[in-house]
Amino acid sequence: MCLPFFVVSIFRICCACYFERSVVSYELWNRLFHLCLWALLKMGIFSNGKVKDASEQAEQLQRELLHHAQVTLAHPPSALDVSVMYQATAHSVRDRLVERWLKTEEHYSKTNAKRIYYLSLEYLVGRSLLNAILNLGLKGEYSEALKNLGYHLEETVEEERDAGLGNGGLGRLASCFLDSMATLSIPSVGYGIRYRYGIFEQLIADNKQVERPDYWLTKGNPWEVERLDVVYPVRFYGHVTTYHEGDKTHFKWEGGEIVLAVAYDTPIPGYGTINTNTMRLWSARPLEEINLGEFNEGHHNRAVEARDRAEAISSVLYPNDNHDEGKELRLKQQYFFVAATLQDIMKRYKKSGDAITKFDSKVAVQLNDTHPTIAIPELMRVFLDEEGMSWDDAWNITTRVFGYTNHTILPEALEKWSVPLMQKLLPRHLEIIYEINHRHLQLVEKRWSGDTARLQKMSIIEEGNPKMVRMAILATVGSHAINGVAEIHSGLVKTSLFPEFVELSPEKFQNKTNGVTPRRWMLQANPGLSKVITKAVETDEWVLKLDLLERMKHLAGNKALQHDFRAAKQANKLKLAALLKSRCGVEVSEHALFDVQIKRIHEYKRQLLNVLSLIYRYECIKRASPADRSKFVPRVAIFAGKAAPGYHLAKRIIHLINA
Amino acid sequence: MCLPFFVVSIFRICCACYFERSVVSYELWNRLFHLCLWALLKMGIFSNGKVKDASEQAEQLQRELLHHAQVTLAHPPSALDVSVMYQATAHSVRDRLVERWLKTEEHYSKTNAKRIYYLSLEYLVGRSLLNAILNLGLKGEYSEALKNLGYHLEETVEEERDAGLGNGGLGRLASCFLDSMATLSIPSVGYGIRYRYGIFEQLIADNKQVERPDYWLTKGNPWEVERLDVVYPVRFYGHVTTYHEGDKTHFKWEGGEIVLAVAYDTPIPGYGTINTNTMRLWSARPLEEINLGEFNEGHHNRAVEARDRAEAISSVLYPNDNHDEGKELRLKQQYFFVAATLQDIMKRYKKSGDAITKFDSKVAVQLNDTHPTIAIPELMRVFLDEEGMSWDDAWNITTRVFGYTNHTILPEALEKWSVPLMQKLLPRHLEIIYEINHRHLQLVEKRWSGDTARLQKMSIIEEGNPKMVRMAILATVGSHAINGVAEIHSGLVKTSLFPEFVELSPEKFQNKTNGVTPRRWMLQANPGLSKVITKAVETDEWVLKLDLLERMKHLAGNKALQHDFRAAKQANKLKLAALLKSRCGVEVSEHALFDVQIKRIHEYKRQLLNVLSLIYRYECIKRASPADRSKFVPRVAIFAGKAAPGYHLAKRIIHLINA
Repeated sequence: MCLPFFVVSIFRICCACYFERSVVSYELWNRLFHLCLWALLKMGIFSNGKVKDASEQAEQLQRELLHHAQVTLAHPPSALDVSVMYQATAHSVRDRLVERWLKTEEHYSKTNAKRIYYLSLEYLVGRSLLNAILNLGLKGEYSEALKNLGYHLEETVEEERDAGLGNGGLGRLASCFLDSMATLSIPSVGYGIRYRYGIFEQLIADNKQVERPDYWLTKGNPWEVERLDVVYPVRFYGHVTTYHEGDKTHFKWEGGEIVLAVAYDTPIPGYGTINTNTMRLWSARPLEEINLGEFNEGHHNRAVEARDRAEAISSVLYPNDNHDEGKELRLKQQYFFVAATLQDIMKRYKKSGDAITKFDSKVAVQLNDTHPTIAIPELMRVFLDEEGMSWDDAWNITTRVFGYTNHTILPEALEKWSVPLMQKLLPRHLEIIYEINHRHLQLVEKRWSGDTARLQKMSIIEEGNPKMVRMAILATVGSHAINGVAEIHSGLVKTSLFPEFVELSPEKFQNKTNGVTPRRWMLQANPGLSKVITKAVETDEWVLKLDLLERMKHLAGNKALQHDFRAAKQANKLKLAALLKSRCGVEVSEHALFDVQIKRIHEYKRQLLNVLSLIYRYECIKRASPADRSKFVPRVAIFAGKAAPGYHLAKRIIHLINA
Repeated sequence: MCLPFFVVSIFRICCACYFERSVVSYELWNRLFHLCLWALLKMGIFSNGKVKDASEQAEQLQRELLHHAQVTLAHPPSALDVSVMYQATAHSVRDRLVERWLKTEEHYSKTNAKRIYYLSLEYLVGRSLLNAILNLGLKGEYSEALKNLGYHLEETVEEERDAGLGNGGLGRLASCFLDSMATLSIPSVGYGIRYRYGIFEQLIADNKQVERPDYWLTKGNPWEVERLDVVYPVRFYGHVTTYHEGDKTHFKWEGGEIVLAVAYDTPIPGYGTINTNTMRLWSARPLEEINLGEFNEGHHNRAVEARDRAEAISSVLYPNDNHDEGKELRLKQQYFFVAATLQDIMKRYKKSGDAITKFDSKVAVQLNDTHPTIAIPELMRVFLDEEGMSWDDAWNITTRVFGYTNHTILPEALEKWSVPLMQKLLPRHLEIIYEINHRHLQLVEKRWSGDTARLQKMSIIEEGNPKMVRMAILATVGSHAINGVAEIHSGLVKTSLFPEFVELSPEKFQNKTNGVTPRRWMLQANPGLSKVITKAVETDEWVLKLDLLERMKHLAGNKALQHDFRAAKQANKLKLAALLKSRCGVEVSEHALFDVQIKRIHEYKRQLLNVLSLIYRYECIKRASPADRSKFVPRVAIFAGKAAPGYHLAKRIIHLINA
């Protein structure tokens, strides 16, 4: 603008006047100087290097938001609404994350850091905007910027569609781990599948659950970066050929069908650090999108058959929690994401120039449940068939690379794949699994010679018709560390699931109790209680160091804290009551005891027992005398949860609860 | 930065010294003042409002390019390459276009301008980057910015994938019209289909043409803005119900299948103006993307059947030039884009608040060939069934809205749709077409009473088994203006295609000779010759006003111009020879006469005659004596062109040429 020029000119003329005519005092000149300097500062002339205060930052954000709304998203000023502003805010936050992301990656590359690769078929990400803003420490600034434009941050974040890429605890554990590793500056990548449709949407009609597909991507996903240059081929079916070189036999997996895996990266910001890690999800694409010949002949279905077959792989998350479905497509999903991931890891490793024999010094792979277990024979295949390693070297490295998290001892949840299916889909892997099993059983036989029952129990292959591959045993044999997710669960893993394996290699078994990130589950989810805690422990550092909460122990009897604590809880109950009224049309007393059970509907989670107890309680109240009735504490029972669409009994429980 | 502060502080301290100690002269102070001012200016402190010079602009662009490469595209500095730089450059150019775009749209809205809607099933867009840079007048600046980053503009633009959404002349005409209307500031929108696969890619194997799908979108398209909020439902099949209100009969088209049309907008920049118009292309989406029940049952093909059926509509451009295929999917494409377009036009019109009876004062629709002719009965349907207009009012407005461009008089290219097909796909439209025809034939009968032959010739419905709807006659009856695309062609339209209609309404028939935009086809395609022309006519205004080329007439004999002209041509021949060598491995003499025929391979375009003449010429040369041989002018014959995949004879001609 001409304004700074104008100010400087006035300033200069005044000075010249002073010198030439000597009519003005130095006092006046000095005032003028400061006035002009102040004017220049106000115009932001010198601001670009200064540490900006919050309101300056808010102004800057406001400009960014308008730029993204109008330029990036091409919406005219007259057409802005809260949905556009959500997109614009997400873009602005994303820009900040990307800058940190690149710096993080550069740092990891430069230091050639050992990385943890977390492999999980599920990530229950939820919403990202508020989480990212909190981790950037810019909640106040974004609030103000949006307010100046006529929007509320609270409303804006409501526009985001949940990324529902998980069923429940297993997926949320994965997401919480990614958050923690980013916050703790641990070099890591989370790998998974970018399901086009996540966990189904639940509607209730006639008191029953009705499922609808979750179209979470139809309005775009500002958090992901499509990496069209990061593409790997993944083979299915085909056959194994052997050829001999000297006295060595080589194996080659050939033929079959190739599907492409395209990477989609999402930044995972740490809290209170610039460290920003990556979640890399794979999307399946066909090698050829369309058969033009078939299309030109008018056979439109046949023209896109290969595309549909490929795209089906990353279409839908299997909606089962703790239940193995054993479907071919599920095994395809598992191998698809594992094969792409290991190619990606290998490419990154080879870039560092280190020898392949030192692979485990830079690579740790954690298997979240048995779903990615096919990675064990896959890495063996790569080492043996592609890198030309000996079996012993390959196996030593492989077992040092893998760790396995067991999530359940429920028999119906323990994955098994039929040998004929695996023979058809992954013929080379089946050969390798047989060889792993053969060597493993030799060790068992050596130690407990002649103990056939033990051999049968410990075998990766379950006898029967058809024979089955037990993935949990494969994961246990192929890993150096096996953990349960709670003290009691890890105990059961040792005593009832794998007692024979504990005898064989006790050093492998450990416990890692599941936690959740206090950033999302307290700071973001419960700002009221968070303030109370910060006040009580006299720091907000507890968000990073949860041990600080111990400081509250001796305050248990403190009246003021008790009051604040109750007030925060009561405020949340009021909010929940309002939500129940607006969403479900049910009015409840905020003075009642709220009894909440929110999780997947499952027999073993015992919602049925809960609802039967409510019926019993209701009967008791009905039968009680008026005097006795007044002794009952008023109680509001809240159930929420989805049932797997094919889980008949769980759906009947929903019906019962609603009835 | 602290530097400006530092400079200002020194400046201030010096001044204070002067005042307090009076040791320095005003002379010195004045020098210091100018030095500081100069330093501040150099630091760019006052630059943001000034008209920047080219190198400042280049620096600004350089920053933008890096920002887009690293932040928008999330590529670390170490991973930048020419493909990323193309994307970054496109984003930077796009940002500039979007700003102009929004201003243009705001201006059109404010002035409630009459708009031309250009409806075309094809747009042969080609590449956009260099065109946009030229229209912005920033070629030098982007060149310099890229050069400073280590890239060449020429290489960078080569990274762009052609948008091949047309077969040939008809599609390129549409794109040239959009360019011209933008340059002339004519409020207009080009409507069409966003084909996922454009015109097929041609490979030559064994001298024969092999077709491959054109995956132009797999690496993303930075020029389009996905408008997920601009979605219209389009109905197919179903039935018509009637109901009575007083003595009026109402018709309602119901049932059938709904497909969604999603808008993708591309800015069309004018040359030497900020005016930037829109090309809005429709992509087909299913109402429900997936049948979750079928998917859960393991029927993955059936689960996505409806999606495939919907997506097929905007999948592939029919690869025929001047040939009617008569396939159901083609009629679906036509109605799909017409129905979405008219809903969009109606929505824009209604926003202005004008009465529906004044529709034609704000809306002109140009039909590029008969492909969008179904728009005539569709607009009638909207007026009659949805707006409740009388037939006469609706027909008056409709005919004033539409203009029709005829492209061919070839019988095999004149579209006809079987009545049973239309009855099935668009039952209400068939009723309306019958009614249009009935009233039209009444007029004919009134004027040429009893002339059955004439009635048959002029009827929209062709008798036969099955009966057919003749789209060219429907377009002629429903438009107020019909044009051919060349003087001679427009004459033939009148004398041989529609003589009866010329007798009926001679005022409708006119000529508009096809042109091409000199921005793309001279300035961009032939910079050497452009310079020669600019020098000769002493202005570069000829790019906008082609008449200025007349100034060259009297220079025809000018030796210097002749030399420059020949030199420009020769330089281009050298370039072409180099390209032929690198692409086809063929070495040709740049001193030969280049005889080039580049267009669709078609019998009527007579490539066969051309190649036969070459064979004849070859025979003549072989038979000639050495002395006579030297009299032949050396000649290089160049053919290029695709044949429709189903056009056997055209493919044989390609085979012959290559053999």
